[in-house]
Amino acid sequence: MTETLLNDTFLAATLGEKRTKTPVWLMRQAGRILPEYRALRASLSGFKELVETPHLAAEVTLQPVDHLGVDAAIIFSDILVVPEAMGYTYEMIESVGPRFPRTIKTEADVEALRIPDIEESLGYVLEAIKITKKELNGRIPLIGFAGAPLTILAYLVDGGGSKTFSNTRAMLNANPDIAHKALEKITKTTINYLKAQILAGANVVQLFDSWAGIFSQEQYNEFGLKYIEKICTEVVEVPVTVFAKGAVFSIQDIAKLPCATIGIDWNTPIDFALNNSGTKTLQGNLDPSVLYGSFSFIEKKTKEMLKAFGNRTHIANLGHGVYPDTPLDGVKCFIETVKNHTNEI
Amino acid sequence: MTETLLNDTFLAATLGEKRTKTPVWLMRQAGRILPEYRALRASLSGFKELVETPHLAAEVTLQPVDHLGVDAAIIFSDILVVPEAMGYTYEMIESVGPRFPRTIKTEADVEALRIPDIEESLGYVLEAIKITKKELNGRIPLIGFAGAPLTILAYLVDGGGSKTFSNTRAMLNANPDIAHKALEKITKTTINYLKAQILAGANVVQLFDSWAGIFSQEQYNEFGLKYIEKICTEVVEVPVTVFAKGAVFSIQDIAKLPCATIGIDWNTPIDFALNNSGTKTLQGNLDPSVLYGSFSFIEKKTKEMLKAFGNRTHIANLGHGVYPDTPLDGVKCFIETVKNHTNEI
Repeated sequence: MTETLLNDTFLAATLGEKRTKTPVWLMRQAGRILPEYRALRASLSGFKELVETPHLAAEVTLQPVDHLGVDAAIIFSDILVVPEAMGYTYEMIESVGPRFPRTIKTEADVEALRIPDIEESLGYVLEAIKITKKELNGRIPLIGFAGAPLTILAYLVDGGGSKTFSNTRAMLNANPDIAHKALEKITKTTINYLKAQILAGANVVQLFDSWAGIFSQEQYNEFGLKYIEKICTEVVEVPVTVFAKGAVFSIQDIAKLPCATIGIDWNTPIDFALNNSGTKTLQGNLDPSVLYGSFSFIEKKTKEMLKAFGNRTHIANLGHGVYPDTPLDGVKCFIETVKNHTNEI
Repeated sequence: MTETLLNDTFLAATLGEKRTKTPVWLMRQAGRILPEYRALRASLSGFKELVETPHLAAEVTLQPVDHLGVDAAIIFSDILVVPEAMGYTYEMIESVGPRFPRTIKTEADVEALRIPDIEESLGYVLEAIKITKKELNGRIPLIGFAGAPLTILAYLVDGGGSKTFSNTRAMLNANPDIAHKALEKITKTTINYLKAQILAGANVVQLFDSWAGIFSQEQYNEFGLKYIEKICTEVVEVPVTVFAKGAVFSIQDIAKLPCATIGIDWNTPIDFALNNSGTKTLQGNLDPSVLYGSFSFIEKKTKEMLKAFGNRTHIANLGHGVYPDTPLDGVKCFIETVKNHTNEI
């Protein structure tokens, strides 16, 4: 079944089609930048209630669509629902971040990782996607997503965010077999999960490798890209975007994968990305902190970015998730600047 | 007065001289990896007592010299002594990190930053250097250091470590004049401080720009490198090492500065560093997590690193400070592997 979309500029870009209008959306657009999100969130017991209640997740997914006029929606969820479905529950601690009370240290811990039935364990995400699709009613495409396996493993081993993820990196060096066993299981689950999201209605899927930049290039090739490649090879139903934050020197290798789009962070110079990514569609990469500046500053920086991508098919976005305290008017200025821009093609 | 050093391989390397033996030391070598450090630390009220008591700071500076046989000592201190001397006191919170109760938000806050008399405010560091020099008695050179101005500003504005340093980056975009005023003052103080360390006996000084990698290249040029250049231009008495962690794409610009050595982190491929740093001496860059591996693994990775630097003058080190829980035998294996290696020249 081919869906007809009223606004397909984002989907066209992921398929490599350069149009006069550059599509725009923001990572973390469904979140604290919106007053209606904060209001809803304040009425709930916590972050996980929002993630796990399909009609609420759908509601916040739609908020930026209605309020900001972005060219793509992304399902509101968290990459940590996957390790949770595999048997390792996470807590979301206010103004600290996620924490896993139980971590992976030994082979027995990896054995305890289960490959779940997606419908049973993550049905709430699929349900949220279905509700969202119905509400979107073909206006714009919906992005599904998952964490890349190495980032998920890093959370499971270090037990939360970390400046160094030294436990994970120690495991990769001291016990590579344990790491690979865990990564195989996470990869298999991720493939099943993404396919289920696509069946539920996701038009594009994105892999977030949030901690890719903490690993040496050699380590990232062996433990990171290997599994991203498996996912890209298996998930062929829709275009796949790979966002390996911080792994600047791996862009040449990512460009060889069967993915559609490469996300780039704000630290990566655009010309470096252009010169090392073949003809892939690129997504990014305005420094999120630019949106704290004046309107004229935001406009200037956004125009510079649009120009720098030149003839390459480009999806405008920030180089990281929008920061929660970003002024909403700054966000709107960014989006409007992209919308007012016309590519010469 | 020219000092005669019994072991001058490190100093020779900072002066660009490639010898048959590659010098080796580790960032954070004076610290928790050593049992004698942990024993001393446990007997004290806190981290700051150690930093602020000259004979104790000297004692821990010398511990890795005696225990590990490294080719350079680095004075035990903290980069945050500078903002403290400028009027912003820091706290070191156990297993969290540094925190500034008072932060910089406005122009008035910048006005309150004072340019201190170094002897008066930081005399304890100078005294520690003098004691250390006496105890070293010409065995190996002593490295002095300071934080680079932008990293110090980041701590002052965000109030501590941060995943995004979004307050600092917001200031650079929204109030660049305030940022520049603060950076000017920090730079002036840092120059005075480094010159005082050199007078006290430091043979080389290193600038740590720990958070360089959080900024976009353009922002780093304007707010980071500009002030590092000022310091390198003023501090001409001894060789200067610049370690701008994460600022991989700025290496070409750093190579143009009047510094002697460029420190590189473990995420930077060695060939990229070699191809973009002219003929500067390079320092680094083994992934610190390698030291969690088996001896044969550590040896293999260390040899690969030594080989990869080829004919370039090289100071062996990790690509980041050694992690506190690193097995001491792993550290020793790294050092021995470097010491057993002979360069063909």
